[in-house]
Amino acid sequence: MPYPMQGLPRQVSIYEVGPRDGLQNESAVVPVEVKAEFIERLADAGHKIIEATSFVHPTWVPQLADADELLARLRRKSGVRYPVLVPNERGLGRALDRGVDEIAIFASATETFAAKNLNRGLESQFDMFEPVVARALESGVRVRAYVSMCFGDPWEGPTPVSQVVQVGERLLGLGCYQLSLGDTIGVGTPGHVTALIEAFRSPERLAVHFHDTYGQALGNTLAALQAGVTTIDASTGGIGGCPYAESATGNLATEDLVWMLRGLGIETGLDLGKLVSTSVWLAELLGRPSPSRVVQALSKG
Amino acid sequence: MPYPMQGLPRQVSIYEVGPRDGLQNESAVVPVEVKAEFIERLADAGHKIIEATSFVHPTWVPQLADADELLARLRRKSGVRYPVLVPNERGLGRALDRGVDEIAIFASATETFAAKNLNRGLESQFDMFEPVVARALESGVRVRAYVSMCFGDPWEGPTPVSQVVQVGERLLGLGCYQLSLGDTIGVGTPGHVTALIEAFRSPERLAVHFHDTYGQALGNTLAALQAGVTTIDASTGGIGGCPYAESATGNLATEDLVWMLRGLGIETGLDLGKLVSTSVWLAELLGRPSPSRVVQALSKG
Repeated sequence: MPYPMQGLPRQVSIYEVGPRDGLQNESAVVPVEVKAEFIERLADAGHKIIEATSFVHPTWVPQLADADELLARLRRKSGVRYPVLVPNERGLGRALDRGVDEIAIFASATETFAAKNLNRGLESQFDMFEPVVARALESGVRVRAYVSMCFGDPWEGPTPVSQVVQVGERLLGLGCYQLSLGDTIGVGTPGHVTALIEAFRSPERLAVHFHDTYGQALGNTLAALQAGVTTIDASTGGIGGCPYAESATGNLATEDLVWMLRGLGIETGLDLGKLVSTSVWLAELLGRPSPSRVVQALSKG
Repeated sequence: MPYPMQGLPRQVSIYEVGPRDGLQNESAVVPVEVKAEFIERLADAGHKIIEATSFVHPTWVPQLADADELLARLRRKSGVRYPVLVPNERGLGRALDRGVDEIAIFASATETFAAKNLNRGLESQFDMFEPVVARALESGVRVRAYVSMCFGDPWEGPTPVSQVVQVGERLLGLGCYQLSLGDTIGVGTPGHVTALIEAFRSPERLAVHFHDTYGQALGNTLAALQAGVTTIDASTGGIGGCPYAESATGNLATEDLVWMLRGLGIETGLDLGKLVSTSVWLAELLGRPSPSRVVQALSKG
C-alpha cells in the first residue's frame, strides 16, 4: 500500500547507469556478451533509459574497450533509449558511426578534477565540449551533460553552489537537454541538494546522480524530489566505484530507489523482482555481493 | 560548511541503542568488560543517552545476561543517561535494585508479533505494561516505550496507522515520556513515516527507530525530522540485526546519521571521529565489518 508524500512528483524517470558508470569502475572486466545480456535484462525489467557504454579511449577505461562490439551486438527493445558517454570529438565520431542517437558528456564542477580527469581547466573544458555538442546536435543527436564533483571534491573541499551553477547553466546554454548533477564522492547532504537545485533556473532540466559512499544517496534523492527533480540516476545493484572497501557502494542502487518510490506511490514502470535477480546474477559474475540493501534482503530472505 | 534545510529542527537528540539493541542481535557474545568500555567510549564521544542493557531473562537474550554486572562495573559520566530495557515486573525489580532511574519497555503494534515476542495479544500486552509503568513512575523512574512493527511485520504485511496510534497513545496515557516508533523489519518509506507521525497528537513526544534492511533508514529519518520529530534512535556502526546477510545492517548507523545532521547544520554534540574509531574497534571484536557507510569510508580512506 503506497503512502504518497506531499510535494513529490507523480512520475520519476530512472536513468540507469550500471552498464557504463557501474562496470567502468569494477575491477573485473566483463565479457561483451555478458554486457549485452545485462542491458537486455535491464530493458526487460522495464528500464526506458540505459546508458550502455562509453566511447572513451581504451587506455583510460579498458573495461569498456568493447563499446563498438557491444553496440553492434545489442538487441534493442522498442521504446528504450540507450545513450552512450562520449568524452570528445573522436569519441563522438565513433558514436555517430554506430548510429547512436543520444550521448552524454562529462564535465567537472571543480578546477582540480577538470585538470585531473579532463586535462583541462574549469574554463577550458568548454573548448572540448562546444564542438562535440554542436556536431551532435547538427547530427540530430540529443546531448545530456554530467557535472561531476557538484558537492565537493577530494582536493578543494566543498564545491561552491555558484560554481556548479556557472558550469551547469553554460552546458544547458550549449543545448544539452539535461544536466545530471553528480555527487561523485558522496559527501552531500539534503540541505546542500536543495540549495543547489534551487540555484538553477529550471529544475525540470536537472537530474541527480548520487553516490552512497557516506550512506546519503537515498536521503539526498528525497530532497531532490522535493525540490522538483524528476530524473534520478541509479545503478543496478549499486555497482560501480568501490574506492574504499570491498563492499562499499558506488552509485545509488536502483533497487533501493525503486523500493522508496514504490512506497511513495511513484510510478517507475520497473519490475523489482527482475532487477534483483539481474543484480544477483551480475554479482556472481563480478565475484562480490551487491552492495544494495534491497538486493541483500530480497535475495537471502 | 553546513547547508540547513527549511523546516528542520535545530537540535536533535540521538538515542544510542548499540549496547542493547545492537549487541543483543549480534551472534558474538561480548565480554562484560568490553561492553563497559564500549559504553564509556560512546559517552566520551559525546552521547548523552545510551541504552546500556536489558533486564530480559537470560534464556531469551543470553548476549545480555550480564546486565547486573555491567551496571555494577560501568563508570558513568556526569550528564549522561543510561536507560535499560525492562520487559516485565521481574525485570523492573532487577533494574530498581541496581538503582536505574530510566527504563524502556517494548510493545508491539501487531497482534502476531505481540503473540510471538511477548506471548500476549495486542490488547493483553497492556496487562503486562500497566503495573511496570505504574511502579516505575512511583519509584521516580522515567519510562520510554518502544512500539515495534509500526510499518509492517513479516506475517500481517503493512501495519495500519490507526493501529499504531491506538497502541502508542495508550502507552503515552500510562505516563511514558516518549514513544519510539520502530520499523523493526525496515520496510517503511518516507510518506508512511509522515502519515504515521502526523496521526499522533504530539510529535514532540515521538522518537523514530529505523532499521536499514531495505536502505530506507536515513531517508525515513529525514521525513521524520521534517514532520517535527527531534529524537532519533541509532546504533554505533549500524550493529545489530543481520537477519539476511553477513553484512546486512540492522539499525540505522549513528555515524551515517551524524554525517547527515552535520551537513544540515544540526547540532548533536557528537565527535564523529571518536564514533568511527569506536565502531572500528568493536567490528574487530565482533569479527565482521561495520555495515555503516561512513565507518567504511572513513576507516579505509
